[in-house]
Order: sequence, then structure tokens, then C-alpha cells
Amino acid sequence: MKKRSLPLSKVYRLLEPGPVVLVSSARGGKANVMTMSWHMMVDFEPPLVACIISNRNFTFDILQETRECVINIPAVELAKKVVACGNFSGREVDKFKKFRLTPVPASCVAAPLIFECFANLECKVADASLLDKYCLFILEVVKAWIDPRKKNHRTIHHCGYGEFMVAGRHIKLPSKMK
Amino acid sequence: MKKRSLPLSKVYRLLEPGPVVLVSSARGGKANVMTMSWHMMVDFEPPLVACIISNRNFTFDILQETRECVINIPAVELAKKVVACGNFSGREVDKFKKFRLTPVPASCVAAPLIFECFANLECKVADASLLDKYCLFILEVVKAWIDPRKKNHRTIHHCGYGEFMVAGRHIKLPSKMK
Repeated sequence: MKKRSLPLSKVYRLLEPGPVVLVSSARGGKANVMTMSWHMMVDFEPPLVACIISNRNFTFDILQETRECVINIPAVELAKKVVACGNFSGREVDKFKKFRLTPVPASCVAAPLIFECFANLECKVADASLLDKYCLFILEVVKAWIDPRKKNHRTIHHCGYGEFMVAGRHIKLPSKMK
Repeated sequence: MKKRSLPLSKVYRLLEPGPVVLVSSARGGKANVMTMSWHMMVDFEPPLVACIISNRNFTFDILQETRECVINIPAVELAKKVVACGNFSGREVDKFKKFRLTPVPASCVAAPLIFECFANLECKVADASLLDKYCLFILEVVKAWIDPRKKNHRTIHHCGYGEFMVAGRHIKLPSKMK
């Protein structure tokens, strides 16, 4: 399977609906994955994404140090692994191995893409000024990938305590909004 | 119809899935509504919500001055009005009147609740330090309301250019995540 490069101008269309994502990071040859749901778009192009990553998380330390990560978007088929990634800390287990996720080298960052996710966004930290106050990172997406085979990926959306809404049908309305 | 007070600790469960929301605001006895999709949770309790509101929007001016607004969550039945609110500026039209939305007095802020939305979150601006750089407001939810009658509200999630994903089925997985 080869993923296709996605124009950066289209990245917001993947994140704006609010899916649960997997954040992959790496330090000293060791990779980690965390589940994340608190993120939003900040700008269209270059795509800026804000996210909250608790400073209790292993990913916080790696991201603060390396300033690089990948936002991977899973479809519902991966739901069990997504929850499993949220139930363990990368300080104790290698989640790629434990949950059989496949790391693939990225093109612009050291953190790996997660092969099983239908989209992968390579990110660099653009602003860390709100880290101390809110654990808020502002990331710039520098390269984006999408699986060209499947079109209707059903993302999952966290409603708290392991309850997820699965993306349903799509509707189209005449809009001037981008 | 009477809405019920919702504990502030449950607010994140409404916003974390990433629904399109309507932001209502008021200044000098004049109310406005805008459609918003770029928001995320920042903290559980008190609930902090980050959002991006373009400084070209009328709501930006009102919010900067009054430091108060209401985040109203519409279900799919309101989709046409949600898009309509995004297609017009409050500088030119009274959107409450034009789109037949019903303003209801809030309890802690001057901005009105939108009756037709199934949930309403009264907010005060908690941090405006990233306004100049990113048009990023951090809001604190000070009071929350929910319609107790209906349970499975189908929220809508914007995928760009008037295409919306409608919330589908719910699944539950054993999770340690809050």
C-alpha cells in the first residue's frame, strides 16, 4: 500500500470534524503513540493545529524535546487499538509492538507514521508559549499523507469514558464557508 | 420546554466529539450568532474551551469587548440554519430574526441562549493573550444547560465547503480514559 501526498490546503478537512487521533513521536530510536482528542485547527495554510497534551504523558516530554510528531487518523476498525493506546503509558510499554501498529518512516520528521491509519500528518512544534499554562502545543503540519484506496473512512469521536460516536452519513448544503 | 442545568464536569463530553456549534453574543441590546467549528477542550473543570474566531467576524469584536458569549450545540435538524448563519454577517442582518432562532436570557452572561439548540454553554473569556497572534480565545464555561427530553442528538461535523458528517452510532470500549 502506498499513501499519496495530500495538499496541505486540504488538511483542515480531516481534522475539523473532530476525530480521535493517534500522536506518534520518537526519541533516541524509541517510538511512542498516544491517543488524543483535544485538538483544533488554528489556520488553513500552512495548516496550524492546536492540541492539549497533558504533562503527565510521555509524549509531552518527547514533543517538548524533539519538537516533532505525527498526527495519525484512525478509522473505526482501529478503535480497540486506539483505546488500548490510551490505557497504557509509553514509559512502560512499546505500544507499537504491544498493539501491533506498524511504524513507517516519515519524510520530514523523525517520528514514524502509523501505517494502519488512513491519514498521517507530519508536524513540527510552531509555538510552545502556552505549554506552562495549558499544556497547549501549536503544531504546523509540514507534510500530509492519505490512503487513496478507501474514501468513506468512518472516524471515531470520543464522548468520554470509552464511549465513541462513529462518523455517520454525509450531507451537503450550499455554503459560503470554507 | 425547560432545559436542565448540566454539571460543569460533564461539559467536555459535549464538545470533545467536535460538533459544529453556534456562538451567540450581544452588545448594546443587539444579539448575534455565528457558526464555529474550530474549538477544543483545554481543561475538564472548570471547563476551559479554546476557539478560533476570525477578526473579520462581527462576533470577534463583540467578544473582545464584552468578554461573554454562549456556545450553543445544534442537532442535524438545524443544519440549514447553521449554514445560513455562516453565510451572513451580523453586521448586516439580525440573524436571530432572519433565521427564526429564539433568544432566551442566560443566567450568568448577557448573551442569549439559542432555544432551538439542545445544549447551551454560558462562557466568559478567560484568556485573550493569543488573540493578536492566532485569534484564539480561551473561554471558561460558567453555566451549562441541556434539553432533558431527547437523548440521541445527532450533531453535525464540518468537513469543509458545506459538507457535514452527521453523528452516527455509538460504541463503548473498556477505557481508563476520562
